[in-house]
Amino acid sequence: MKLTILGGDGRSIRLAYLLEEDGHDVKAFGFKEDHINKLLLSHTLDEALDKSSVVIGPIPLSHDEVYLNTPFHPEKIPLEDIFKKMKPDQVFMAGKISEEVYNLAKTNNIKAVDLMNREEMSVLNGIPTAEGAIQVAMEEMDIVLHGANALVLGFGRMGKILCKKLQGLDVNVYVGARKVKDLAWIESYGYIPVNLVELNAYLKNMDVIFNTIPSMVLDGERILNINQDTLIVDIASVPGGVDLEKAKDLNIKVIWALGLPGKVAPKTAAMILKNTITNIIEELGVL
Amino acid sequence: MKLTILGGDGRSIRLAYLLEEDGHDVKAFGFKEDHINKLLLSHTLDEALDKSSVVIGPIPLSHDEVYLNTPFHPEKIPLEDIFKKMKPDQVFMAGKISEEVYNLAKTNNIKAVDLMNREEMSVLNGIPTAEGAIQVAMEEMDIVLHGANALVLGFGRMGKILCKKLQGLDVNVYVGARKVKDLAWIESYGYIPVNLVELNAYLKNMDVIFNTIPSMVLDGERILNINQDTLIVDIASVPGGVDLEKAKDLNIKVIWALGLPGKVAPKTAAMILKNTITNIIEELGVL
Amino acid sequence: MKLTILGGDGRSIRLAYLLEEDGHDVKAFGFKEDHINKLLLSHTLDEALDKSSVVIGPIPLSHDEVYLNTPFHPEKIPLEDIFKKMKPDQVFMAGKISEEVYNLAKTNNIKAVDLMNREEMSVLNGIPTAEGAIQVAMEEMDIVLHGANALVLGFGRMGKILCKKLQGLDVNVYVGARKVKDLAWIESYGYIPVNLVELNAYLKNMDVIFNTIPSMVLDGERILNINQDTLIVDIASVPGGVDLEKAKDLNIKVIWALGLPGKVAPKTAAMILKNTITNIIEELGVL
Amino acid sequence: MKLTILGGDGRSIRLAYLLEEDGHDVKAFGFKEDHINKLLLSHTLDEALDKSSVVIGPIPLSHDEVYLNTPFHPEKIPLEDIFKKMKPDQVFMAGKISEEVYNLAKTNNIKAVDLMNREEMSVLNGIPTAEGAIQVAMEEMDIVLHGANALVLGFGRMGKILCKKLQGLDVNVYVGARKVKDLAWIESYGYIPVNLVELNAYLKNMDVIFNTIPSMVLDGERILNINQDTLIVDIASVPGGVDLEKAKDLNIKVIWALGLPGKVAPKTAAMILKNTITNIIEELGVL
Repeated sequence: MKLTILGGDGRSIRLAYLLEEDGHDVKAFGFKEDHINKLLLSHTLDEALDKSSVVIGPIPLSHDEVYLNTPFHPEKIPLEDIFKKMKPDQVFMAGKISEEVYNLAKTNNIKAVDLMNREEMSVLNGIPTAEGAIQVAMEEMDIVLHGANALVLGFGRMGKILCKKLQGLDVNVYVGARKVKDLAWIESYGYIPVNLVELNAYLKNMDVIFNTIPSMVLDGERILNINQDTLIVDIASVPGGVDLEKAKDLNIKVIWALGLPGKVAPKTAAMILKNTITNIIEELGVL
Repeated sequence: MKLTILGGDGRSIRLAYLLEEDGHDVKAFGFKEDHINKLLLSHTLDEALDKSSVVIGPIPLSHDEVYLNTPFHPEKIPLEDIFKKMKPDQVFMAGKISEEVYNLAKTNNIKAVDLMNREEMSVLNGIPTAEGAIQVAMEEMDIVLHGANALVLGFGRMGKILCKKLQGLDVNVYVGARKVKDLAWIESYGYIPVNLVELNAYLKNMDVIFNTIPSMVLDGERILNINQDTLIVDIASVPGGVDLEKAKDLNIKVIWALGLPGKVAPKTAAMILKNTITNIIEELGVL
Repeated sequence: MKLTILGGDGRSIRLAYLLEEDGHDVKAFGFKEDHINKLLLSHTLDEALDKSSVVIGPIPLSHDEVYLNTPFHPEKIPLEDIFKKMKPDQVFMAGKISEEVYNLAKTNNIKAVDLMNREEMSVLNGIPTAEGAIQVAMEEMDIVLHGANALVLGFGRMGKILCKKLQGLDVNVYVGARKVKDLAWIESYGYIPVNLVELNAYLKNMDVIFNTIPSMVLDGERILNINQDTLIVDIASVPGGVDLEKAKDLNIKVIWALGLPGKVAPKTAAMILKNTITNIIEELGVL
Repeated sequence: MKLTILGGDGRSIRLAYLLEEDGHDVKAFGFKEDHINKLLLSHTLDEALDKSSVVIGPIPLSHDEVYLNTPFHPEKIPLEDIFKKMKPDQVFMAGKISEEVYNLAKTNNIKAVDLMNREEMSVLNGIPTAEGAIQVAMEEMDIVLHGANALVLGFGRMGKILCKKLQGLDVNVYVGARKVKDLAWIESYGYIPVNLVELNAYLKNMDVIFNTIPSMVLDGERILNINQDTLIVDIASVPGGVDLEKAKDLNIKVIWALGLPGKVAPKTAAMILKNTITNIIEELGVL
């Protein structure tokens, strides 16, 4: 199967190599020669798209909804050009496709699939995210995690995997959640459930706090209960969950770690991407 | 707070004791004197209900939707009598309340809450169910679980907790599921994902298979792939997931283990019940 | 290679089958026809020993140092007869060979190896012993192990494996030891170290106590600190470590579980035996 | 109790603070004012030693067996001066005391204790060493540890703790050892035993190799079997266990990580030191 990689960062390049190793005919466009194996590089967008079954854009697809996200390419590539040149039987995939861009694709009769909406991708990205959060904690703390008190805020995708790994390192794992059902799950997995209503009583005894809730859970008031020795690792997406200014005033260290998969395990991140793309190809019956 | 326990088996009796230990004024009816501490026993239904805030029936509430489930009481107690004698500010709780009985309660202006619908109860019951399934496997197998190949069918409430405990015993944990998302979760937790489409290839190498899926997953055809040495422990509720007759023909041992919490850890089962009741009381603001 | 199995219980019979599955020529003597596959059975001791490279006696070898331990054979077989009939190039292995019997073998120019002195066998038997202890606890307790307080007395072979498995089941694992070094190891593995000097303070809060120390550690005085609800599982060999009479007076349940490998996982026990025998054969260069 | 800290690096300074937090009267000498809280600093060696019960030197005590190891002090302090000024009832502790220095202390009637000979210290240092090795692997690998193949060479102090933590992170843990007994232990803990005789067959499939054996185990020949993508983390003390030149030729990345406790968890390292010192004080009955 011919596959096209259009723009993106190191993750897209690794993805190109992994797809080629799997035996696909891979063509790339939107990179300079010194970033990627020349043999994969097409000279023109037309050449790259020609006879391709699946066209894979970057993650995120675009920063302005007009041009492709191409950090490794000197010239700008308009999204509209891509959709105009594609044929209706070609599938377009990329990360974070806006409503606007969806419509643009549709107008051009192109089926666009947002990789970030795929649940298996979010779930699997929880693995490098959890390892990355642990790596950050190890790097920033002057004590070992072994025997430390760690509080994980939120018991969703990232929280669940992170908790298991922390427990596997013999950390005392506290988990803060709001719903009675989540608190029951936390207990079932052998962690210590903390009702968010009673959070303040726990904050001062923690050596490290991992936040996974993307809303202001450690606000200016709650943060007053946190010890200066405590490290906060926020892995929640924008807007995060920590009052950063207040933390700075109180001399509490906060690391807001975003995009961990690509940073701490770029090859794994590319493999997860590849598997997700393969699943979509199978489900759509792309030939 | 005054609480009334009406009928039920050993679990209800243990529940009465646990509630009393918590400092509640507990009255019981629907038991013979030799089954329960006499001091808790009321002589009449009226006496038991008088001034009570919460009336707690058995699990299941009834076998015929007419009379209370009272294995330890010689005389039948009609559900209608209970609702007629209760006051509107009293709350009624029990397990498996049918539509019919709900309506009966409503007609009599009584708020009825089904304990089996509470998610925290189902989740927490996963703990004794998982331990019970492991106990059954230990009792029935002539090899150790350590290093054995175990397949868990289904990755819902029971599957998730069971898998974690099996892994904690150094078992090789395979998990069968159908959805791409579930398979991603299975991988994220460090178990070996088995797409149910490819199940047959795995069946013959398993030392023990735990089924949690309440539909015929190990049917007469699939079961042909299972080894005679393999133990099957079915913890799925009725109708179960194993073709029992075919298994018998093939001389494959199947243990269909239902109601494990009450059997393997009756005190824990009663404690889960108590915590669930306490949660409901708090949520409803019962005084 | 021809191997001879002489006497013993079910474990010896399973061993015979396992050795045959491995492709050896196995002959057995000291069993009745209805206990073992007839094809393996020799009619006389001479026939059994003829051309054999290794002669494998029971575990334990004898109860009186005169006759072979043959629970499944109507006639007594004197040890002396065996050694007299064996040839000097044949190796004799069995469990618990006394000084006296060693000398008897030596007098007859026979090399005897005690299987119970092999460290790999003691270590590996720790696996079924640990699982068996957990099975006993699950069967006897009315609460789940999950979240329970368990105290393991002694951090030797059995203690180490048992603790890891208990932790894997989300038990709170306390370990009692005397030496500073052992207490450091206990902490390194993520368990809670208990200096035996301060044992009394911990005893009353335990749900289950596993003893692995073969001397009176839970004596009449210490046992006074143990709660009536606490289960004691003693897996220490004779003389055990619990004052059984005092425990009975205090209505504390004690299960003294000996020989767990053969009871809870006879096939695993036979496999460990087989692997140990194979190791010895390799080391001795038996042909 | 008055305690004296003489020279050393950041670990000694942290130790001084921890001992003071415990309520001891701590005096330090051999540091410049800007490295340590002035209130603890003595102006002269005599002042520092006066009325002290225990004198704690650095780790290692000296680099030349003549002068104290004082990286934070401009002037050299001869060991002989210290022992001459100490009184016979004062105890001297430090790390890595040579035969020569022992004799020097003895000549001056001073009891010297080598902290590095204390088993609890070696064992507990295994915790930050294991976490540090994992941190290094996380930092250097472009894939996650989750699901990776890791080989640990050696099953001594460091190997045992490292393996448990790797397993807790859902790594496939292979362990290389030579003795039948160690291989049995490895199996008992649920890791995959690799007989060093068969090591070459495993090397090529590993994502990361941790060496804990302080002798040339990954020599120029064995290393030929290792993949270029494989990371080697050597945590064995001098002379290490990897042919570094050959690895460089083959473009295989090797990180030789020494002194991990002080680097990755300096506070924990100081706490372990403090606990060891406290144990010695108790055992010696120092007043």
